[in-house]
Amino acid sequence: MRRLRPAHLLRTVDLAGTALFALQGGLTAAAAGLDVFGVLVIAFVTAVGGGIIRDLLLGDTPPAVFCDLAYPITAFAGGAVVVLLYTTVRDVPRDVLIPLDAAALALFAVVGAAKAIDHRMSPLLAALLGTVSGVGGGVIRDVLLGGVPLVLRSDVYAVAALAGAGVTAVGLRYGAPRVLVLALGAVVTVVLRLVAVWQGWNLPRVAG
Amino acid sequence: MRRLRPAHLLRTVDLAGTALFALQGGLTAAAAGLDVFGVLVIAFVTAVGGGIIRDLLLGDTPPAVFCDLAYPITAFAGGAVVVLLYTTVRDVPRDVLIPLDAAALALFAVVGAAKAIDHRMSPLLAALLGTVSGVGGGVIRDVLLGGVPLVLRSDVYAVAALAGAGVTAVGLRYGAPRVLVLALGAVVTVVLRLVAVWQGWNLPRVAG
Amino acid sequence: MRRLRPAHLLRTVDLAGTALFALQGGLTAAAAGLDVFGVLVIAFVTAVGGGIIRDLLLGDTPPAVFCDLAYPITAFAGGAVVVLLYTTVRDVPRDVLIPLDAAALALFAVVGAAKAIDHRMSPLLAALLGTVSGVGGGVIRDVLLGGVPLVLRSDVYAVAALAGAGVTAVGLRYGAPRVLVLALGAVVTVVLRLVAVWQGWNLPRVAG
Repeated sequence: MRRLRPAHLLRTVDLAGTALFALQGGLTAAAAGLDVFGVLVIAFVTAVGGGIIRDLLLGDTPPAVFCDLAYPITAFAGGAVVVLLYTTVRDVPRDVLIPLDAAALALFAVVGAAKAIDHRMSPLLAALLGTVSGVGGGVIRDVLLGGVPLVLRSDVYAVAALAGAGVTAVGLRYGAPRVLVLALGAVVTVVLRLVAVWQGWNLPRVAG
Repeated sequence: MRRLRPAHLLRTVDLAGTALFALQGGLTAAAAGLDVFGVLVIAFVTAVGGGIIRDLLLGDTPPAVFCDLAYPITAFAGGAVVVLLYTTVRDVPRDVLIPLDAAALALFAVVGAAKAIDHRMSPLLAALLGTVSGVGGGVIRDVLLGGVPLVLRSDVYAVAALAGAGVTAVGLRYGAPRVLVLALGAVVTVVLRLVAVWQGWNLPRVAG
Repeated sequence: MRRLRPAHLLRTVDLAGTALFALQGGLTAAAAGLDVFGVLVIAFVTAVGGGIIRDLLLGDTPPAVFCDLAYPITAFAGGAVVVLLYTTVRDVPRDVLIPLDAAALALFAVVGAAKAIDHRMSPLLAALLGTVSGVGGGVIRDVLLGGVPLVLRSDVYAVAALAGAGVTAVGLRYGAPRVLVLALGAVVTVVLRLVAVWQGWNLPRVAG
């Protein structure tokens, strides 16, 4: 796996995103009535599922999450926090969770797109792969919990990831400075997502 | 990715199959009440899911669909047609859709089997992989939409794909002419599928 | 694929585990009302799904099950037995099935962990991968049948696999004799699973 530069900063932020996705996945699983083990499993797959799909599709195996112990440990730690402090975590207000989640989504989307460009994919496919990195964990979570993935039903979420990943992919493909492009892509995703939530934007249904 | 010969003809037909599967997936998603983005996503995974699973299992990564822009563009175009022309597409009669779908199923099944034989798999496994190529996209579609995959419940569908893929795999393994074998396999799938629909064939349930 | 030693014994036991998981998967599918083909498919994916996920994550493609005809034949044979002898198989008492299932779970878990150690994964990740090998087929079965995977809800099952896989991974990593470590890991899984069933152990729910 090629490291993005500045690698240490990105890895720290990446782990923060992993922790947050693990918290969310664990909360969803606990609310669905799963036991301790089920909560840990769902927290884990929510946090690392997107990256695993990304690396499988890139042929970059074993996936990064299986090569750096910090990722699974962080993912399980997020699940363990839910198990140990459920009533506290449950009460974290939505106004705190949503921006944090948007940040995690943005980070996974731009890192995924950058990794695809590093593997010489075209910008369109890199943008798709970045989106899959961002939303894949949540899709696996929802399928395992027996429902239609939220991302297919809810307000502008994957579209925000796609926009940020697209900006990143196009920028890197045409040689713009890496740090700048990644930051810009992340900002696009976060802003689009937060404005969508704030304004109650939803895409129209196709069938009336 | 090794090209089948005559490559241009096959690629054209392959893209036609991709477009048709995208239309079907998009229609199913629209009828399930998804929004514009959800319809595009389901159209995409229905159209390319089988090929992605095939290439992951063959270790041929990134999957072909991520190496040739025509595939994702065709898949999204199929979804976009559903979004823009929903009421028209919805009213295409079943007597038109089912033969087209059988043709797409047949093509994916024989191409998948041929690719597996090129990777030196045994005919039995190549036939299985061809079947997975043909039905995989629909399975992902149904799982994401929260249901039991139709292919596990409905009339002779996967069996038709298996028969055509099997003919192809055995024929190629024993050195019969490539174009002939592929055409024969495709005809087997199409005929078996259409006769099954026409006669109302269903396999028996196991539990009374 | 590196063979474990003594290879012949292990392959025999591995095939026995494959057959048993196929029987179980087929029974579940028949009870869910699937037709003959659906029962065979679910039997197949239950029996080989865990190993396929394991090999995809290790980058060891095509997966072992696609390289050794004995595995798919055994898996389909298990499904065929359900189809042909449904009423007999259905009546096999739980006291026979559960120990056999625990043995299959144990075997898949320790073989998966050993394979991951052979690929130079850390013991923690090898234990996770062994667990996935053990429970993965059942998860795919339950998702295809439209439910929440049993392993996320039921009594100590994946935890038993994790314990055995962990013992195996740590033992092999620190150079203990291979046969001894695999046997010990398998015993840990079987004993933990059977005691859990016998005592009615369940992990607590997180949300009251």
